[in-house]
Parts: sequence; structure tokens; C-alpha cells
Amino acid sequence: MARWEPDARGRLVRAAMELYRERGFDRTTVAEIAARAGLTERTFFRHFADKREVLFAGGEALQDLVVEGIAAAPPRTAALDAVAEALRSAVPLFEERRVFARQRHALIAAHPELLEREVMKLTSLASAAAAALRDRGVAPTAASLAAEAGVAVFKAGFERWIDDPKERDLAHHMRAALDELRSVVLDQAPPHARSRRSSPSRAPSSRRTSARRGAGF
Amino acid sequence: MARWEPDARGRLVRAAMELYRERGFDRTTVAEIAARAGLTERTFFRHFADKREVLFAGGEALQDLVVEGIAAAPPRTAALDAVAEALRSAVPLFEERRVFARQRHALIAAHPELLEREVMKLTSLASAAAAALRDRGVAPTAASLAAEAGVAVFKAGFERWIDDPKERDLAHHMRAALDELRSVVLDQAPPHARSRRSSPSRAPSSRRTSARRGAGF
Repeated sequence: MARWEPDARGRLVRAAMELYRERGFDRTTVAEIAARAGLTERTFFRHFADKREVLFAGGEALQDLVVEGIAAAPPRTAALDAVAEALRSAVPLFEERRVFARQRHALIAAHPELLEREVMKLTSLASAAAAALRDRGVAPTAASLAAEAGVAVFKAGFERWIDDPKERDLAHHMRAALDELRSVVLDQAPPHARSRRSSPSRAPSSRRTSARRGAGF
Repeated sequence: MARWEPDARGRLVRAAMELYRERGFDRTTVAEIAARAGLTERTFFRHFADKREVLFAGGEALQDLVVEGIAAAPPRTAALDAVAEALRSAVPLFEERRVFARQRHALIAAHPELLEREVMKLTSLASAAAAALRDRGVAPTAASLAAEAGVAVFKAGFERWIDDPKERDLAHHMRAALDELRSVVLDQAPPHARSRRSSPSRAPSSRRTSARRGAGF
């Protein structure tokens, strides 16, 4: 029975996405996905654990690429540079599949149980990146912060990429998101803005002092 | 039956934590928690949906404080400053409960289903913070990045706080984590470090160029 089916995996993914869009994720069965792809349920289950997993099939490849990329970064590469370069190396996984990525994103946003799995996959990506940085000798807190900052940049870039009417590439949007992170982290209200603040009665001096120090815990 | 039970909620939380530590989370029942607290199961379910929820009872208060704190920040406060100040205002929620926080953290780390709920709560905290920033006029990408950076700093500070043998306070550790985030985001391998890089044969010029630009997508 285990005969070779040309591109079975790709056919199953395409069939699943068609059906999810036509009749909704909840009302699609594995039997229907297999039938649409011209394959058996048994073949489906050789490739995917369940109908959710069809949407997360690329997650492991992404994580492997990121971990390998961090490990292979030249010595002394700054932690966030290593994460960003490693994520950049994953761009080709997505770049040819913008339509799929867009459909998948809409589906996930509409289904809490899919969103939950997506969040857990991204959390596990960040943990794996942090572990790979620690293996390079980065201290634990810096490793976690660099990994989470990198994944936040990836997510932000990704969202702009799938929504971009100009269809600029993913690498462009990741670069823009990284620049934006740099501004956000460095941004402090400039002194002249502070002195022009409205409602001075609600700005006691203690607040003003802590604002002057920057983001003040 | 709905008589007033003095500090029923606090008694349930303490009883639950005692039992989770004595016999394990999985083997503790709601009936046992109620009995240990000297209350009925019915009272338990007036306060918590299930035995997991006992550990996440503070999440809503934290989220409310953060959202209100961001909304109340003076006009023109930088986005990350607003998130950091709002999180700082939540410090008293934790500061008096370091032992509880430490026990809770160990329990969550050991149970995937608890860790999953923790991750989802932190994701929802970041989404709420991003929405509060957008309400102040912060652009969507900057809002998401500032919110996620703030939550990453909170997590990193929290982990150092519960592990700190010197028992320095949570605000101290959050401030340190924020400084660390600033270094991580600004850090790029300095030029002299780059020219001293080992294994030059594994550093083709294209890599070197992208390293020179900083974290290069």
C-alpha cells in the first residue's frame, strides 16, 4: 500500500487550503482533504498528525534553519545580528508562497485553537533561538531578549509582507521592522516635547523625573 | 448557601499551592483543595473555573493595570516608556509574594499545559498593550514591537527576580532587563572585533558586508 505518490504532501496542503476556504476549517474532514488530493486517508496520516498540522508543517524546517544559522554565525557576531541573519536565511521558505501565507494567516486569525498553536510554535522558535545563542556563550538574559526581539521583528515583518499592496519582498519588510525596533527601543520623548506637554496638572514632578530617565522601571 | 467566607479566594490559592507541592498538580482535585481550605467545592467554583485557573488568577488584574497605565501616560511619552511604566506600576502585585511566585514558576515550568496557558496569557497581555498604544496614536508595527519588547523585558526581569539569591526587588530586575534589551538591540560587533575574527576562510565577503550593516535581513 505504501506506494510512492508524487508530491503527496504538496497536494494535501493545497487540497486542505482549498477546502478550508470553501467550507470552513471546522467543517472540513481529513477524508475530504485526501479525496480532493486524489489520495487515501492513510497517505494523509503518513504526512500529518491531524488537519491542523497541515498548516504548521513548515514550522520545524524554520526552526532548524534558525538554530543552524545561529550556530554557523561567525564568532563575535552580535546576538541580535545572529538571530536576524538566521531568520533572513528562512526567507526563501516563504517568498514563493505569499498567497498561501496570506490565506493561512487569515485562517489562523479566525480560529482561536489555530492561533494558540501558532503562538506556541513561535514561542518554541524563540526558545530554540535563545538556546542556540547560549551555546555560543551569550548570557541567558541577553540570549532570551535577543531571541524574542528577533522573533517579534520576524512577526511584524511578516504581517506587513502579507498585507503589502506593493508586494515588496519579505526581506525588505523584516529589515524595516528591525529598523523600527531600533527606533522603538531608543525612542525617548525629546526634552522639548516634554516641556510642551499638555495637562501639566497631571504631571507631578516624580513622573517627570522618571520620564527623563527614559523607560523607567 | 452563598454565605460570606472571609478571604475565601486567598485560602483557596494557598491550599491549592500546598497540595500541588505535596502531591503534584495532576493528582490534586478541586474537592481536596476546597477541603484543605475549609470551604465547599461550590465556593471554589464561585472563584475559579478549574484547578489550573487558581494559578492564573492575577493575570486579569495585571492586564487591566497595564492597559490603564498606558492610557494614562502623559501625551508624547515614547511607546516603550509607556509600556515599561505601566508594567512597573504592577510591581506591588508581585513584590510581596516572591515565595508564591517562585513556587508557581516551578510548577508551570514542569507542566506543559500550564506553560501553554502562561504563554497565552502573556501573548494576550502584549496584544492588549499594543491595542492601548494604538489608541494613543502609535502606528501598528511600532505598537506591536514596543508591547512585545516590554513584555519580554518583564519576563526576563521576573525570571531574574525569582532566582535572585540577593533578593533584590522586582523593579531593580526589570530596570536591568530593560538596560540589557537596549544593549542587545544596539550591539553590533565592533569593527576591530570583526577584523580579528577567526576562521577567515568561513567568512566570505558577502557575509562580512552584511555584518557591517548590522543585523542584516
